Amino acid sequence: MTASVSTPALIALDWGTTSLRAYLLGADGLALDTRASSAGIMNLPAGGFDQAFEETCGAWLDAHAHLPVIAAGMVGSAQGWVEAPYVETPANADALVAGIVDVKTARGVVLHVVPGVLERGVLPNVMRGEETQIFGALASEPALGNAGGALIGLPGTHAKWAFVADERIERFYTFMTGETFSALRDHTILGRTMHPTATHDEQAFLRGVDTARDAGHPGMLATIFSTRTLGLTGQLSAEQQSDYLSGLLIGHELRGLNEVLTREQSALAGKPLRLIGNDALCNRYRAALARFGCHGAATVAHATEHGLYGIAALAGLVAARRAA
Amino acid sequence: MTASVSTPALIALDWGTTSLRAYLLGADGLALDTRASSAGIMNLPAGGFDQAFEETCGAWLDAHAHLPVIAAGMVGSAQGWVEAPYVETPANADALVAGIVDVKTARGVVLHVVPGVLERGVLPNVMRGEETQIFGALASEPALGNAGGALIGLPGTHAKWAFVADERIERFYTFMTGETFSALRDHTILGRTMHPTATHDEQAFLRGVDTARDAGHPGMLATIFSTRTLGLTGQLSAEQQSDYLSGLLIGHELRGLNEVLTREQSALAGKPLRLIGNDALCNRYRAALARFGCHGAATVAHATEHGLYGIAALAGLVAARRAA
Repeated sequence: MTASVSTPALIALDWGTTSLRAYLLGADGLALDTRASSAGIMNLPAGGFDQAFEETCGAWLDAHAHLPVIAAGMVGSAQGWVEAPYVETPANADALVAGIVDVKTARGVVLHVVPGVLERGVLPNVMRGEETQIFGALASEPALGNAGGALIGLPGTHAKWAFVADERIERFYTFMTGETFSALRDHTILGRTMHPTATHDEQAFLRGVDTARDAGHPGMLATIFSTRTLGLTGQLSAEQQSDYLSGLLIGHELRGLNEVLTREQSALAGKPLRLIGNDALCNRYRAALARFGCHGAATVAHATEHGLYGIAALAGLVAARRAA
Repeated sequence: MTASVSTPALIALDWGTTSLRAYLLGADGLALDTRASSAGIMNLPAGGFDQAFEETCGAWLDAHAHLPVIAAGMVGSAQGWVEAPYVETPANADALVAGIVDVKTARGVVLHVVPGVLERGVLPNVMRGEETQIFGALASEPALGNAGGALIGLPGTHAKWAFVADERIERFYTFMTGETFSALRDHTILGRTMHPTATHDEQAFLRGVDTARDAGHPGMLATIFSTRTLGLTGQLSAEQQSDYLSGLLIGHELRGLNEVLTREQSALAGKPLRLIGNDALCNRYRAALARFGCHGAATVAHATEHGLYGIAALAGLVAARRAA
């Protein structure tokens, strides 16, 4: 919970596949109260979306019946509460506002659902929820939206890297880094020689990053096998193998991104760059980015709340409350 | 079973992690009889190695008590029947013979176990069993062992690509292509939208190969997500997604290999190249190699038997039988 003298102005939901985070935001956009639940859209209680919504936001609405409610994330997917069709790149905040789809809850409150973003092309890409966080980052630091452009990374199960410029999401990539790491660790021979530990072995992690970054190998399907063979040859302990593999995969992600930039006469080292995500993971990425010459990749705090508040304000939801 | 007028000269075993294949070879090196069992070293019957050996080879030895017996594969690993320490690259057939380690069976027969090959370096590599198949390919087609060099590919769970020259295995790579494919299909979001079919969709497979081969993407962790997004955008049916993903991974393997060759002023398109493995998988690789301009990648038949027979002959095991 965050103390604030502000009065409640908005209920903002980050409603994903496996979790639901709710924020009671004041007129200044700061959180007055927060709720977290495991009621993601694939993990709903018996009463479905309405029940999850009541359990999370019911008390707030009992106290403040007419608060506007906005949501982003998988809740707007085809498997969500209501489908908010994707907005296509390049996408600015106005396009997201224009794409908002409403659904009426059992309580009679309207839930305003922000659409995701789709990039068409040979390798199509989709995001739901991250677009809102990205506009939250631009709200916190408007210079990121300049014409020169910036890169915003959102590490995780499906890591996203978005190119932003002119206050728009120009294009983005999805890297299945987190999910591939789990699948390799838990369901291939690589996991069999690993000994899990609670501590992060920075040296093993960076060794993995450096191995992926350096040119003299034939790609990720080959480098990952070294997790095993460095163990077999006594060069990597069982306790180090998990962090080494993590470094390899994050290193391959950043190498791939850097190669795209290089083809555009740019580089990770020369780009304004921000991270959005949990601290431990952002710290890993920051350490890995430094190996590519990229420093100053700060983590954006409260990107989700800022993004939801900003879109609600642009949609007139918060202004309407203020006027009420 | 293969008909032959030859008399038995050698029992040859390809004894891996999950299977045991046994060949009764004549003095001409051709198979008179074969046995296959699931008694790999991680799947032994109650009586262990001796029991598996008796069940597979007992009848042959009852009929021909003094036949020499040779084996290659994981049976010579630290988890095998007896450890045959790795021979280091560059390795020729003489080095393998010098590294043979014997173990006496309960029946009193000596099993001669061929060692695997280790390549030291930043990314160490190991093989057990494939080295014997590679020398089988060189026995079938001696020109592959010329000074100019050739590439021998062994597709599978852990695909190997070996550079051979001067009748030696100079160096090799391991690509975890098969195992990564299974882990991604069975344990990530990619499998959820796939509809398995018995037929191979060549068009979807080659689309995956081409996507991996082309330069305009940021690497494998990104391209694999297109299996899902091409489905979401109606460009890839549920039935096509598995073959597309297979093509992507094999394409990334060959792209990585080709990049290594390019750095050495060579290319897949210009290399003498052979494949060892089952027909369906070799056909996939041949189709993928053609997209890299590499044609004429023939499959080597009977590489295992030829390799085991050749090493046994070089070790004097078969000659001893002939003289008896």
